[in-house]
Amino acid sequence: MIVTDSEKTISALCSDWRAEGLSVGLVPTMGALHRGHLSLVKTAVASVDRVVVSIFVNPTQFAAGEDLDRYPRTLQQDCEQVKKAGACAVFTPDTVTVYPEGFSSEVRVSGITEGLCGAYRPGHFDGVSTVCAVLFGIVKPEVAVFGMKDAQQLAVIRRMVSDLRMGVDIVAAPIVREADGLAMSSRNRYLSVEERGQAVLINTGLEKAVSLCRGGEKNCAVLKEAFLQTVSNASKLRVQYAEIVDPDTLLQVETAEKTVLLAVAVFAGKTRLIDNVLIRPEV
Amino acid sequence: MIVTDSEKTISALCSDWRAEGLSVGLVPTMGALHRGHLSLVKTAVASVDRVVVSIFVNPTQFAAGEDLDRYPRTLQQDCEQVKKAGACAVFTPDTVTVYPEGFSSEVRVSGITEGLCGAYRPGHFDGVSTVCAVLFGIVKPEVAVFGMKDAQQLAVIRRMVSDLRMGVDIVAAPIVREADGLAMSSRNRYLSVEERGQAVLINTGLEKAVSLCRGGEKNCAVLKEAFLQTVSNASKLRVQYAEIVDPDTLLQVETAEKTVLLAVAVFAGKTRLIDNVLIRPEV
Repeated sequence: MIVTDSEKTISALCSDWRAEGLSVGLVPTMGALHRGHLSLVKTAVASVDRVVVSIFVNPTQFAAGEDLDRYPRTLQQDCEQVKKAGACAVFTPDTVTVYPEGFSSEVRVSGITEGLCGAYRPGHFDGVSTVCAVLFGIVKPEVAVFGMKDAQQLAVIRRMVSDLRMGVDIVAAPIVREADGLAMSSRNRYLSVEERGQAVLINTGLEKAVSLCRGGEKNCAVLKEAFLQTVSNASKLRVQYAEIVDPDTLLQVETAEKTVLLAVAVFAGKTRLIDNVLIRPEV
Repeated sequence: MIVTDSEKTISALCSDWRAEGLSVGLVPTMGALHRGHLSLVKTAVASVDRVVVSIFVNPTQFAAGEDLDRYPRTLQQDCEQVKKAGACAVFTPDTVTVYPEGFSSEVRVSGITEGLCGAYRPGHFDGVSTVCAVLFGIVKPEVAVFGMKDAQQLAVIRRMVSDLRMGVDIVAAPIVREADGLAMSSRNRYLSVEERGQAVLINTGLEKAVSLCRGGEKNCAVLKEAFLQTVSNASKLRVQYAEIVDPDTLLQVETAEKTVLLAVAVFAGKTRLIDNVLIRPEV
């Protein structure tokens, strides 16, 4: 497996692969990899001939006051893990490689970036769409794999790729959870023991909404309330948002007639966690 | 030569050409073609195997109150001309093809879009960069040819392609002029006889600045004044801007130590004309 911080090297490598008729897949990450990321890599390995994992803590997707500086960096361990998972190359550019002097372009997706996380993280999705456009440009993958935990990110990237005809097949991989149900996140390592204990209620709350809906409840206000009730007694948890939306448009939905997305952001102490679940009503 | 308004058709055609090992070039236009456009087509024909000309009057690059509705449409004539010039396909999408329902992405280039035309045409270059990103995505050309008359557009597209690693080689083709020196423009047909007569002074003014610089004058204020003096007595002309800038960054320059760009926008009656010249100082 090749590890490089050079744009020229990774770009030439991918170009050579394409010239040999090999398909290329990209898994864009910010490192600090966990089993969730590794499942993305495995999904990519199953669908293309050569998988590139990018590891880049993208400053432009952090708002002021967020955790850019303390975001965990575990490069060596990350490389060992993705190698085992079947990746062929790791691209670890520094900031000036991704954004060379004079860089002044931005890809912005409007509409679906406004609600959910977008309402609380100004500029976040502009940073995400722009860096993905750059990475897609460098690697020119046929397939890119994103996790469903970042549901809004997935919708934004799908929108961008479709609008700008980028020709990248965006594959979504399911959320991977700890044994007790907490969604895997690089930020889980920020949690104190007490916060970690209570954080499991996020998933419990999501599952309660799913059960209610399976039992016939289609009123989204009721489903959402089931989630809120579940986390409301935990002293360390504070809900930033809990919304039931259409999974593609991210517009709010009042009645769960077809599959809806319950997406939440919850602070556990000072750590912001996101999670979501697709709710498929009984038909 | 194929003429199609179908994205699927043009995209498949270009894909087939690439599969056969043929290189593809794109000349994006808004139609109402003149010899300037045809020189772009010929430049493309000289550098790739198959040339696509797009004809699309892009609504997003017209500001409110501009000439979107009356912009000249001469499709049949356009097709005959580009066929003679050696194009293999003309792509004539309608607006909903380029921007399907739900379209919500935008490519924005900051900095170089702020001065010159950008200061007077709000949103214009966002519209230009976005539509070019879409057209590049559909055609996936190796080369795209743009005219040097739209000097700022050229700089914006180069910046976008470089920043977002679009992998399109941007070729600049020289300004084509009428016999008396007026730069070719689809908007010249708006001019009255009197306006047309005076409009020639725009080129005369640019050439005066070039001569002065050849004679050793490097003070940009003096060079610019030579242009302004030339057009100042024409009753139908009103200068919107005349700036001397670096051709790549479009930042203003005070002394013409190396090649600079004198770019101007002049109203002839109600018709806005742009023109420019590269000034290479004696060394």
